[in-house]
Amino acid sequence: MQWYVVAALLTILTSSQGILTTLSQSNGGYKYDYATVPFLAEVFKLVVSGFLLWREIKTSTPPRMTTDWKSVRLYPIPSIIYLIHNNVQFATLTFVDTTTYQIMGNLKIVTTAILFRLFLKRRLSNLQWMAIVLLAVGTTTSQVKGCGEASCDSLLSSPIQGYMLGILSACLSALAGVYTEFLMKKNNDSLYWQNLQLYMFGAIFNMARLVLDDFRGRFEKGPWWHRIFNGYSITTFMVVLNLGSTGLLVSWLMKYADNIVKVYSTSMAMLLTMVLSIFFFNFRPTLQLFLGIIVCMMSLHMYFAPANMLLDLPLTAKAAPQTGIEVSVDRKSDS
Amino acid sequence: MQWYVVAALLTILTSSQGILTTLSQSNGGYKYDYATVPFLAEVFKLVVSGFLLWREIKTSTPPRMTTDWKSVRLYPIPSIIYLIHNNVQFATLTFVDTTTYQIMGNLKIVTTAILFRLFLKRRLSNLQWMAIVLLAVGTTTSQVKGCGEASCDSLLSSPIQGYMLGILSACLSALAGVYTEFLMKKNNDSLYWQNLQLYMFGAIFNMARLVLDDFRGRFEKGPWWHRIFNGYSITTFMVVLNLGSTGLLVSWLMKYADNIVKVYSTSMAMLLTMVLSIFFFNFRPTLQLFLGIIVCMMSLHMYFAPANMLLDLPLTAKAAPQTGIEVSVDRKSDS
Repeated sequence: MQWYVVAALLTILTSSQGILTTLSQSNGGYKYDYATVPFLAEVFKLVVSGFLLWREIKTSTPPRMTTDWKSVRLYPIPSIIYLIHNNVQFATLTFVDTTTYQIMGNLKIVTTAILFRLFLKRRLSNLQWMAIVLLAVGTTTSQVKGCGEASCDSLLSSPIQGYMLGILSACLSALAGVYTEFLMKKNNDSLYWQNLQLYMFGAIFNMARLVLDDFRGRFEKGPWWHRIFNGYSITTFMVVLNLGSTGLLVSWLMKYADNIVKVYSTSMAMLLTMVLSIFFFNFRPTLQLFLGIIVCMMSLHMYFAPANMLLDLPLTAKAAPQTGIEVSVDRKSDS
Repeated sequence: MQWYVVAALLTILTSSQGILTTLSQSNGGYKYDYATVPFLAEVFKLVVSGFLLWREIKTSTPPRMTTDWKSVRLYPIPSIIYLIHNNVQFATLTFVDTTTYQIMGNLKIVTTAILFRLFLKRRLSNLQWMAIVLLAVGTTTSQVKGCGEASCDSLLSSPIQGYMLGILSACLSALAGVYTEFLMKKNNDSLYWQNLQLYMFGAIFNMARLVLDDFRGRFEKGPWWHRIFNGYSITTFMVVLNLGSTGLLVSWLMKYADNIVKVYSTSMAMLLTMVLSIFFFNFRPTLQLFLGIIVCMMSLHMYFAPANMLLDLPLTAKAAPQTGIEVSVDRKSDS
């Protein structure tokens, strides 16, 4: 499969995730325990990856699988970073309102590119750096509140701790992404074997969350496994399947493409969700949404288009550095 | 002089024009007749150009001056286009509010580039086209009204005639600019001789406006030349000098640089005015102003930076097409 097909799929699924999650609510709240969704999604990913690995093992050329502890022990790290990230996120929201929080979330586009450069030693051209900044500016523009909307003057009026935590949150989110890419690319292990390790720890951490919630609630509602599907509707199951599928696509991108491709996919998904909300939820389109979409489209073209297309140079000119993206195609896929 | 020095000067003067005009008002209105300002500015430009031409004629190598009617008759055309433009502008404002009008004004960035390509046959690279669109998007972003500001839902709710006239207005404004560039570059005539012809017609058209106003007012306030400096303060004279000077700089850019350089100068001036208004008029900075400035800066860099800088190519690579900008330096200037 080509990386851009996977990236497009990720955009569509991430976007439907937002729509489905909203549709799964009743009267503005969840009838089910939302913490069960990521846990079940991890289980789903685990089952799918296990099945695909089993099929791979049956073939004449068995997949590469590093099983020594020195390698396995690296796989819980993304889960640990996400755990810290979730708590920082929670702390940030005690200082800033959700609009400011959402706006600050776009910072992770820039922090991802910086960590991508620093830790993975991947070089970006001047133009690609500009494209990254424009992507962050474009997504932020689309989120600027129109006149008449709530929470007007709260922006830039939060305490300084809120902004510091927002920046820390953006760094942690970027770190988790960049670390996962490092993990997936550090050897030629089967993607499904790597997934199995990643999701095993993911499932454990999410289960720990459910157990902790039970302890906090003093088991008044009974243990989590007794009421795991309580309040689930068809839509809720679709939310789980969707979340699991996006996870699998992200894993694939981390191994065969990179974090920047993922960042573009999810940013485009955010814009697509806003456009779809116009039809689904009677969301009123704003001028800034339109402007933000143009900026992001320009950014996409600037980042990925070959140099000779951008500058009308002859075809022999050296293309922009995009090594590692188009080189590796999923040769072991089961299609 | 280098084109970018002139462009920077134009940015500063255009920006001060906005500030000075606001400062010249008293109680939100003009104490003087505003129509006298462009007329006096034309006279100022005429005097300056006349003086510089006289100095040029005294030198050992007299300047080239085409005086036959076939050439001279082309010089009133920009004034005629501006006259039509002003009336279209007036008509537009009967259909749309000032905010929508201001937002639509950014269209002239794109129409200028299109006419520049079509009529002057100047090629822009794919990246430069993207830069132009981003400049228009960036300036528009900076003007998006924040929450709590007036005229909220009027945008996109004006009658269709308003938008059609807005587009026509953007085309006329672009046409005037592109035509002037054609006029200034069509032969090697002295810049000051060309200016003299241009401003002569400019002064006549502006005087006609004053006379017309007198007829409309049935000479109740007396003829215009009796009350031309009525209500003038030091600031008003500075507004006149400033407007005249920007006109001279634009002429220079039309001959030795191009319309795109002018568009960048005036767009940057718009942003600079908004930033200066924060200090001068306690204008409250918005997030969208900040985002718009970033987009415009990126656009500036994309348009003018050499290709090898943008793409980290070796220096031998063919640079982006910028012919005509750096080639001609004002060899006849009196510095």
